[in-house]
Amino acid sequence: VVEGVNVLVAALDAGAAIESVYVSPEGRSHAAVSDVVSNAHARGIRVHDLGAGVMERVADTVTPQGVCAVVGMLDVPLERALSAAIPLTPPTVPTAPTPPAPQPPVTGRTVLVCVDVRDPGNLGAVLRSADASGAEAVICCEGTVDPYNPKVVRASAGSLFHIPIVVSPDSLSTLAELSSAGFLRLGTSAHGGTDYVEVDFRSRVALVLGNEAAGLPDDVASAVDGMVVVPMYGRAESLNVAMAATVLCFEAARQRRRARSPLQ
Amino acid sequence: VVEGVNVLVAALDAGAAIESVYVSPEGRSHAAVSDVVSNAHARGIRVHDLGAGVMERVADTVTPQGVCAVVGMLDVPLERALSAAIPLTPPTVPTAPTPPAPQPPVTGRTVLVCVDVRDPGNLGAVLRSADASGAEAVICCEGTVDPYNPKVVRASAGSLFHIPIVVSPDSLSTLAELSSAGFLRLGTSAHGGTDYVEVDFRSRVALVLGNEAAGLPDDVASAVDGMVVVPMYGRAESLNVAMAATVLCFEAARQRRRARSPLQ
Repeated sequence: VVEGVNVLVAALDAGAAIESVYVSPEGRSHAAVSDVVSNAHARGIRVHDLGAGVMERVADTVTPQGVCAVVGMLDVPLERALSAAIPLTPPTVPTAPTPPAPQPPVTGRTVLVCVDVRDPGNLGAVLRSADASGAEAVICCEGTVDPYNPKVVRASAGSLFHIPIVVSPDSLSTLAELSSAGFLRLGTSAHGGTDYVEVDFRSRVALVLGNEAAGLPDDVASAVDGMVVVPMYGRAESLNVAMAATVLCFEAARQRRRARSPLQ
Repeated sequence: VVEGVNVLVAALDAGAAIESVYVSPEGRSHAAVSDVVSNAHARGIRVHDLGAGVMERVADTVTPQGVCAVVGMLDVPLERALSAAIPLTPPTVPTAPTPPAPQPPVTGRTVLVCVDVRDPGNLGAVLRSADASGAEAVICCEGTVDPYNPKVVRASAGSLFHIPIVVSPDSLSTLAELSSAGFLRLGTSAHGGTDYVEVDFRSRVALVLGNEAAGLPDDVASAVDGMVVVPMYGRAESLNVAMAATVLCFEAARQRRRARSPLQ
């Protein structure tokens, strides 16, 4: 279930399998809601009008925006997410002073593996950073909050519909498959490991994110190829898992762009 | 007012001017609360026991942790924040394989300027990223949520006590002062500008962050020396202001470390 105008627009834009749309009387009176409902109707999606007060009872949000929808599951099998067939769209710099140079094929690939990431806001932000940085996929393993949790859907700001998501209950078998597919598997840690700027993200790298409080379970920490750390300055304790994922994803993106650029 | 054990520990560790501590009967029964209360008492800070149910009525959090404190204001004048006297602690990599090389003096300085950043969670995350990346100061200008808002205090995870904060109502005069102090002033934008990896963060750079929805006001956008953008991949719309600040702050930290390293 997705709630609100912006997420529904993202779902429509991404061509997600929207089963039905529900709109409240208050929603009908808003232009943005009307537009998205008309758009859905025009695509042959069934639109149901709800009676007054019904949306408030069924919605997860405290102040629902008057529209919600039931959307088909989005997650894909691991093999499909890891196939090299997914094209990486070049980054968008709308008013860059010089046009981008012709770009050789990209070989670097980054996937994120979440193990026991519990907070829906954090998983939503991980999806958003992964999407915005051009990562290949996000794999949700045991203990991780359901990517279809309404709070995850909202926090992802539409990225749920943009990046391949894999729901893979067993992290150890997932790590084995990633190794077979040529991925260097690096656990993230607040307590030590290779400085993340020393990691070569022009190759295939799987970043394994752990629980907000406890980090990675011992068996997962033993199964990865190494640990990676974002060095902290000052007296800050650590970044949260979403902030660390953001830093790592954009360093990967920086290195891939640099590898493509003839100037650097 | 700071609420909860972890934030109070951070305030004590940072030597903040704690005026008084308040503890509930439930708080007294928790070991972590007892420890921090004893610690405060040992430093001559007045500790007040609250009656049953009082903390729940006065606290901002839904489930208060049984302890809160009144702490003196932390913000400093702009001139003091910009003085070169603040030493930058080298990054901590607890189990790095090789010891760090001797480091020449650091000249790069990064400050963040928030204009109309409304969401307390975002400002808290900006403080946390600025602190963790070794930035010099965070300047809160007009329209920005009060850094002493309880939600900001919580979201900053103690960083409020670590990094110099300046409350400076007038962004235009602040930008003028930053220019006089040798800072290149770059507005952040989702719509175009210089790619952030092309910015030389080994010099003095002020990153100007704007409102979550509207970006920078026109007069501020006209007053900066240029705009900086984090290029987006795929179909992601944009990063939120806290995520963008995280990416920018850690790119600055990466460049400063690289400038210090004899190997690169």
